Order: sequence, then structure tokens, then C-alpha cells
Amino acid sequence: MSNQTNSAVVYCEKKFGTTDGKTANGLVRFSAKYKIAGVIDSTKAGRDAGEVLDGHKNGIPIYKDLTEALETTQSAPKYFIYGIAPPNGMFSEQDRQIMFFAMEKGMNIVNGLHEFLTEDEAFIQKAQACGVKIYDIRKPKDKKALNVFSNRITEVKCPKIAVLGTDSAVGKRTSAIILTKALCDAGLKTTMVATGQTGLIQGFRYGVVLDAIPEQFISGEMENAVIEAYEHEKSDLIIIEGQGSLSHPAFLSSCFIIRGSQPDAIIIQHSPKRKTLDDYPTILMPTLESEIKLLEVFSGSKVIGITINHTNMTDKEIDLTIKSYEERFRIPASDLLKYDCEKLVRKIVSTFPELTHKVY
Amino acid sequence: MSNQTNSAVVYCEKKFGTTDGKTANGLVRFSAKYKIAGVIDSTKAGRDAGEVLDGHKNGIPIYKDLTEALETTQSAPKYFIYGIAPPNGMFSEQDRQIMFFAMEKGMNIVNGLHEFLTEDEAFIQKAQACGVKIYDIRKPKDKKALNVFSNRITEVKCPKIAVLGTDSAVGKRTSAIILTKALCDAGLKTTMVATGQTGLIQGFRYGVVLDAIPEQFISGEMENAVIEAYEHEKSDLIIIEGQGSLSHPAFLSSCFIIRGSQPDAIIIQHSPKRKTLDDYPTILMPTLESEIKLLEVFSGSKVIGITINHTNMTDKEIDLTIKSYEERFRIPASDLLKYDCEKLVRKIVSTFPELTHKVY
Repeated sequence: MSNQTNSAVVYCEKKFGTTDGKTANGLVRFSAKYKIAGVIDSTKAGRDAGEVLDGHKNGIPIYKDLTEALETTQSAPKYFIYGIAPPNGMFSEQDRQIMFFAMEKGMNIVNGLHEFLTEDEAFIQKAQACGVKIYDIRKPKDKKALNVFSNRITEVKCPKIAVLGTDSAVGKRTSAIILTKALCDAGLKTTMVATGQTGLIQGFRYGVVLDAIPEQFISGEMENAVIEAYEHEKSDLIIIEGQGSLSHPAFLSSCFIIRGSQPDAIIIQHSPKRKTLDDYPTILMPTLESEIKLLEVFSGSKVIGITINHTNMTDKEIDLTIKSYEERFRIPASDLLKYDCEKLVRKIVSTFPELTHKVY
Repeated sequence: MSNQTNSAVVYCEKKFGTTDGKTANGLVRFSAKYKIAGVIDSTKAGRDAGEVLDGHKNGIPIYKDLTEALETTQSAPKYFIYGIAPPNGMFSEQDRQIMFFAMEKGMNIVNGLHEFLTEDEAFIQKAQACGVKIYDIRKPKDKKALNVFSNRITEVKCPKIAVLGTDSAVGKRTSAIILTKALCDAGLKTTMVATGQTGLIQGFRYGVVLDAIPEQFISGEMENAVIEAYEHEKSDLIIIEGQGSLSHPAFLSSCFIIRGSQPDAIIIQHSPKRKTLDDYPTILMPTLESEIKLLEVFSGSKVIGITINHTNMTDKEIDLTIKSYEERFRIPASDLLKYDCEKLVRKIVSTFPELTHKVY
């Protein structure tokens, strides 16, 4: 490991590779802001994080604890990223102790939870004593600086595509990142707008953590992030990360994503083998049919592609599912962690012919 | 005026009777918590508030300013209620000066805006110096006390009906209040759950100001308010006040109202003559058809009645509109400020036959 000043260790005890570990999982797959020096999860210590997650080694080690991580890396990582997204969004006593230990070792704390450490007296004093900083990624701007919806979204002239889904923690962000890269590789200046804490920790330049904002401003903040991306980047295309789902009983940011960004088309992410909602083991998943209908009625736009999360699926099941979805819904379907994005890129370009002459 | 300790003056300068004056309008029509001693609006001074609003005198005078109100009422009202709901939710410098003057006169301040006066150093000091209190109705509980959705809503066994609409400030709360009273009069123990600041200032015992809560908790707080109402009141029926609309670009609390309360049926409020959205003069109103479709697809429940806001309509237009809606949608339609609720009560009882034996 080099002694880069942005090197970070991601804490994900007992949760790496699971849906509750989605911030750590995301950072292991893609991180533009921090150099990920390692993951902490004692249950998977000694293994390669990329291999655990997606079956491909990526050289990021998993450590049993922070002491081992600090002893093993050649230079002390400067950031401790809390990489778990617990259902209640709050820290345990053990979490607090580990972050205190990290601060004593000179590490800055990156926190994506709703519980703000910069408002916690014990953390404020400890950070000061240790000469480190705490970053509360989810802390919203002061209310006076928040935007209300202005309808200036109509001034964004490029196509906007939202990657929405049938549940939370289903892979929307991962598919959006892969698709954005593929569209850029195809010659389209594509900008992704993040909508959650993981995306912002990953280093996306445009975005806002929607679920921490008072409701009156969510739609306006979503709109504003898209306008900012468009005006600064002069994008050919904007991809918007989804959150939760329209049918979800609690995680309804997608409503604001649709109203604030007004997507011209939607790609839907689904986990065919998931039976019940993440965090809600007594509530059945919606069907792909019902969610597509709901998305199309709510948004007035079309769902133009399906991306699947292959958890608990064999290779054969993945292929059969893709085939069956394409026959039933008459739109391209794919598993973007297994296959490339060619079908989806072609569908996007044919949906928005103004992009045709820009593709390589 | 008697010297009741809960007597209040409602400030609504230049806005009484308009959509921006909806908190004052609501309090003049119904107030269980405060005795409304008068309204302040210099543009309508000297008139009767009930007559200005609905054409029926109710003995609440309109004053030109606070000095006149204090000189005229026999005992000093103890509460100054800020009765305007400005689009940006923030106070002007003039508003601040008037509230300082009210505090100097010994009045407590009731504030329903997003700008919290209990966090404003100048207001904190002034209130202390004057020996008065400030009530920030929209200030949410501490995050640790907020509820996430639990699915315990399934334990509420009585029918739940949401009064939703095609826009904000369209009359949903007023129709919900009138309907709740009519259902109680018919012999059904009906409990209304409020979802906005006006309802809580009006004194509804159950409810929560949804649009001030961080998004992750809105659905859970809605659910919790309905469960509380049901468990404490052992209601036969629960009426839930709507907010904004599902098609609205910014005011999307209805999404959480539907997901959190899971209404068994919906009544839709519409203003036939309103051409563009309140606060958004460049955005057209949705049609009643499209909003009903959206509500039914989003909720999985049926719209069983239509209530209209008769602003800018003649009596003849009201009657023709009711007739035409009933023919087109095959459900009862009414103007609850003009006619009684009989049609709607009958429809509700026939929709939920378990209520039949409870009706007088």
C-alpha cells in the first residue's frame, strides 16, 4: 500500500458482502475519492474482498480487526469509513468504541448514518483531542440553503435515465455505475447523479443524500443536483441513481427522484430470487410486472430495460431469467456484473435518436 | 370575548381567505384547542371572518393590525398564531417585528413554519425577557424517538379512509373534518388523523407534521399516528388527512400517507376551476381522471368518492359538475361546504358492511 493521504479502511464487521454491508460493498467495487486499503470483517478475515463479493480478486484484503489492519498496511490509512447500513441507522456501543480507537490512531471518521457524530459531545471532544476530523455525509445543508422544486428541470435538454428498482439494497447503484461507464466508453458524455450516502462516499461529484432532507425540499434538491450536473458537465446523458422503490412501505425516495429529475426513461433493477423485502422479512417482494406498471403510471415514462441482481442464482438460472424477461416484457434484460452493457446501450441510443451521431 | 386562557389572534396579513392563508382559514372554520378571538388582515379589516371565507357570519372579527386587536378584545388574547403558509416556509423581516411586538404584549407565539423560532437566538432571548413561550409546531421529535415503518399497521382492524387530492391547498383537510363530524353524527366512532401543521394547531389529538420529518421516518411516523389513534380511541373508522398530491412535483407526502396508513379506500378532493398548481403557476393541474388512476395504482385501493372545492364556481356550475362527475366516475360527488355528507356516508357504509349495524 502506498502512503496516499486518502487511504481508507472500511469497517463492515459481520456484514461484508451482505445487503447491510452495501456501503462497504460499493466502495470495494468503485471508489473515486478514497483509496480502499482494506475491509474489516472478522468473519471473512484473510480473504480478498473482490473475490468474496464478485468472485474476482481485486487486491483489497479483509482484516479481522482494526489493529490487524493498521499493523499490516505499510502506512497508516487516514480514514475510517463506517461501511455498514444498519436498518435503524444508529450506532451500537461497540461501533462507538471502535471509532474512538480509530481516532486515537489518528484516523478521520467518515459516517454515512442518520446519527450525526459531529453533534455528539463525546465525539466532538475526542476528535479535537486526537486532531482528527469527522465527516457526517448524511448531514443536510442548513434549511435556508435547501432548494424547493422550481420546474427549472425543464431546462435540462439531454435525456435523463433513472435506474430504479423493486426494493432497497437490490443493486441499483452498482448497475447505474456500470452502465454510466459503458455509456462513456461508447462515446457519450454521461454523468451519474448519486442519491444516497454510499454514492457520495464513493466520490460522485453530483448528488445529494435524499433520505436525510426534510420532505418539503427533497424534490427540489434532486432537481438541483441534476441541473448542476447538466450545467457543469454539458452532458449528453444523465443517469440517476435510484433509492428504495415506489411500492416500498418506507423507503420512498424514488417518488422524489421521479418528480424532481423527471426521467425520460427508466431502467429497473430486480433480484429474482429475493422473496421478501430487505429489512422486512414478513413483506413479500412486488412482482416485476406490478412495479413496472407502477413506475410507468407514476412517472409517465417507459421502463426500457431490466437489470438483475443474481444473488442465489446459478449461471443457468441467470440466462433463463434474462431470456424469459425479454420475452415477457419485450425490452432488453441483463446481469451487468456478468455480462456487458451492449444491449442496454443500444436500447438507450435507439430510444433517444439524438444520441446516435455521438456514439463511436 | 371571554378571558379564556387559550384565546388566540391569528395573523394573516393580506392572505386571509387565500390558499396561502390556509392555516388561518382552517382555524376560523374549526379550532378545538384555541378560542379564535380575531384575525389580522388589514385588507379585510372590519369584516366577519366567516362571511369572508364561506359566506356565513361566525362572529370572528378581522382587525387591521395587532394593536387594534388588542385594544378591541376585552381581555388580552394569550396566543399569537402565525396563520400564513408562505411558499418558501420562511418569515419576512416584517413578520419577525410583529411577533416581537406580540411577545412584548405578553402573547405566546404559535408557529407552523419550517423556520424554528425556538432555535433563533433573538427569539429565545425575547421570549425569556417577556416571560412568554414559543411553540414550533413543525419541529420534529429527536431522531432517536422517530418511528420507522414496522408493518404493525396490519393490526389496525377498522377501515381507514384517506382524503387525498389533486393539489396542495385544495381543501382536503376541510373535507376530512366535515366528513369526520358527519360520520360521528351518524353513530360511527370516527377518528381523524392530521398530517400537517394546520391540523395540529386546530387541536387534533392524533397526527404528525409529515413534511418536517427526515424521509426515512415519514412512513413510520404516519403508521404510528394511525395505530395510536386506533388503540386509544377503539375507533370504528379512521379518516386520514391528505397532503399535496401523488402527481405533485414537490409536495409528495401523499406517497407516505398511503404507504404508512395503507388506506382501505380513498376520497379525492379537486378544485374544478383551478388551472395551474398552487405555488406553481406554470404547471397545469392534473386531470381528475389521471389522479384517480394514479391513486388507485399506487395504493391498490379504490377511490370511492369525490369532494369539490367550489372556488370561482357559481351554484349552477357546482351542481352541474357534481352531476357530471357522478356520471363519469360512477361514485358519489359532493361539495361539503354547500351540501351535507349523506351520499358519502352511505357510500362508506356500503363499502365497509361491518359498519352497517353501528349506524343510527
